[in-house]
Amino acid sequence: MLARVGTMRARARFYVAAALTTAINAVQILDGRATAKAIRAELGAEVASIQKTHGVTPGLGVLLVGDRRDSLTYVRMKRKAADEVGIFSSDVTLPASASEDDVLEAVSKLNADPQIHGILVQLPLPSHIDESRILETISPNKDADGFCYENVARLVLRGGPRPLATACTPAGCVELLQRYDIPLAGKRAVVLGRSNVVGAPVAALLQQCDATVTLCHSASENVPDIVREADVVIAAVGKPEYVRGSWLKPGATVIDVGINAVDDATKKAGYRLVGDVHFDEASQVVSAITPVPGGVGPMTIAMLLSNVVNLTKASVGLPMAPLPGRLADKV
Amino acid sequence: MLARVGTMRARARFYVAAALTTAINAVQILDGRATAKAIRAELGAEVASIQKTHGVTPGLGVLLVGDRRDSLTYVRMKRKAADEVGIFSSDVTLPASASEDDVLEAVSKLNADPQIHGILVQLPLPSHIDESRILETISPNKDADGFCYENVARLVLRGGPRPLATACTPAGCVELLQRYDIPLAGKRAVVLGRSNVVGAPVAALLQQCDATVTLCHSASENVPDIVREADVVIAAVGKPEYVRGSWLKPGATVIDVGINAVDDATKKAGYRLVGDVHFDEASQVVSAITPVPGGVGPMTIAMLLSNVVNLTKASVGLPMAPLPGRLADKV
Repeated sequence: MLARVGTMRARARFYVAAALTTAINAVQILDGRATAKAIRAELGAEVASIQKTHGVTPGLGVLLVGDRRDSLTYVRMKRKAADEVGIFSSDVTLPASASEDDVLEAVSKLNADPQIHGILVQLPLPSHIDESRILETISPNKDADGFCYENVARLVLRGGPRPLATACTPAGCVELLQRYDIPLAGKRAVVLGRSNVVGAPVAALLQQCDATVTLCHSASENVPDIVREADVVIAAVGKPEYVRGSWLKPGATVIDVGINAVDDATKKAGYRLVGDVHFDEASQVVSAITPVPGGVGPMTIAMLLSNVVNLTKASVGLPMAPLPGRLADKV
Repeated sequence: MLARVGTMRARARFYVAAALTTAINAVQILDGRATAKAIRAELGAEVASIQKTHGVTPGLGVLLVGDRRDSLTYVRMKRKAADEVGIFSSDVTLPASASEDDVLEAVSKLNADPQIHGILVQLPLPSHIDESRILETISPNKDADGFCYENVARLVLRGGPRPLATACTPAGCVELLQRYDIPLAGKRAVVLGRSNVVGAPVAALLQQCDATVTLCHSASENVPDIVREADVVIAAVGKPEYVRGSWLKPGATVIDVGINAVDDATKKAGYRLVGDVHFDEASQVVSAITPVPGGVGPMTIAMLLSNVVNLTKASVGLPMAPLPGRLADKV
């Protein structure tokens, strides 16, 4: 692991040297693409090992309701990544007109399928379907996204058993910080956005890493002043270039979860992708930052695969990989 | 409700005038004893109404393992308060040597008992018993302390169904703030201590009230500086007079959850009770503070009774009382 981190750090330094020669501040780019690739290589070896010792191939069941273009893209990317590490994946696609009972039945089938170790219900679901009811139907030990009550509660509680899986984007943020040796214990972390999928669980994970966490949201006052206190900023608000360079403490670390399309006539597609943080401004101030794209996105998918491998291990009685922070103490 | 709050505010003002004539700063004492009394009166009326309309008496099952003196005291106080509002209470007492299976069996019996609407397992349990396993056995719709996975997760998640009950001390802190009209939305709240019983759930509740919450703990650095940013401070660390007056922002509100015995030769008992906040110093700076005792303690018990009445209402199909903040939007 240490050797691997060393390699990655060297790679990250190269990236800085190659791509940011114009930057005055020596900012470190937290390369999610390279880190995710390293994780996929590790997972590939684990999958091969489980197959060898237990004759079991980890299986991911993906349930997609409707045909939202972004959801189709995400599902395709997840399936491709699963395939790369040797995880078998099975798709269930229902029309947008499917009833709640149809979706519940599809989840129940995946729960009962011995070839499936992790179930992913691609969100958002059509508005006539009660999302919390569907997520609650997923068996906690096949909950590839860590969204069911039991895994959510185990994440926020101290002591007691560990979650069987943790939400993938939050886990990806923290894994990236840890692989780049960014200190968290005792440090101030500010999370922007309190969604169930990113903001709230990443706050819980950072707290489990002994950070002092402040969670900001749409009702928060004086957000720039609060961000200025942070050693680590996690931006997950979905507003293009919302966090300005002047908001950031010199030397801070920024994890940008946002991925927003903004009009750009100079691009062939007519748009470009930007994060929730103004990258050029932030790069002048902070010591480390994730790029968009190529930061949190690839890490999210790697953590999904990691969850599936872990759930498979648990199903055959193998020890699961340790979780970050104090969660590592849980069994 | 508004008239009742008005009466309580008048009462609180009287308390200030009567008891704190020597204070220079016009601090408001958040009188938990008087507020809890008002809540018990409300609950008494609700219990009478449920009996009249549905012929059902709310029932609280209290499970005590061992004979810790503090636990015996707490259980007695809770039973007395339940009795006062017309809640039937039933005690199950097991010896400290009881096995985990004995305790699980006792919980299962209470789960199955139609006379019992809320179950309280007095913590801490003897160290040979897995606390999380016992709490997880309590049926979520009889979970008087709001400690089971389902209720914990429903508290921290946005949207989806509301928790059937919320942890009593956190609910007591927030109820007290709300009855004294202390604004929370957009304000900075700092919670000291991250226990499962107080710190973590009160942070979640304050966030549901749209406060911007920072959770400090034993690994946090520069705690006084963080506390100085807070409009509302919740102290739950169990260290006598830990928070000094110099840490507090002028005009802040302090909720002191601590109750610590410190040696005092001038007292007949040889000790006096103090909170986690240096009351005399804090009173010179803040605009409102809870006394210790007579602050959060009585509120905790009132919230337990409120949970039992709510669980009873749910069991007969009556609407439950709304929860604070954004939880009020949940159904």
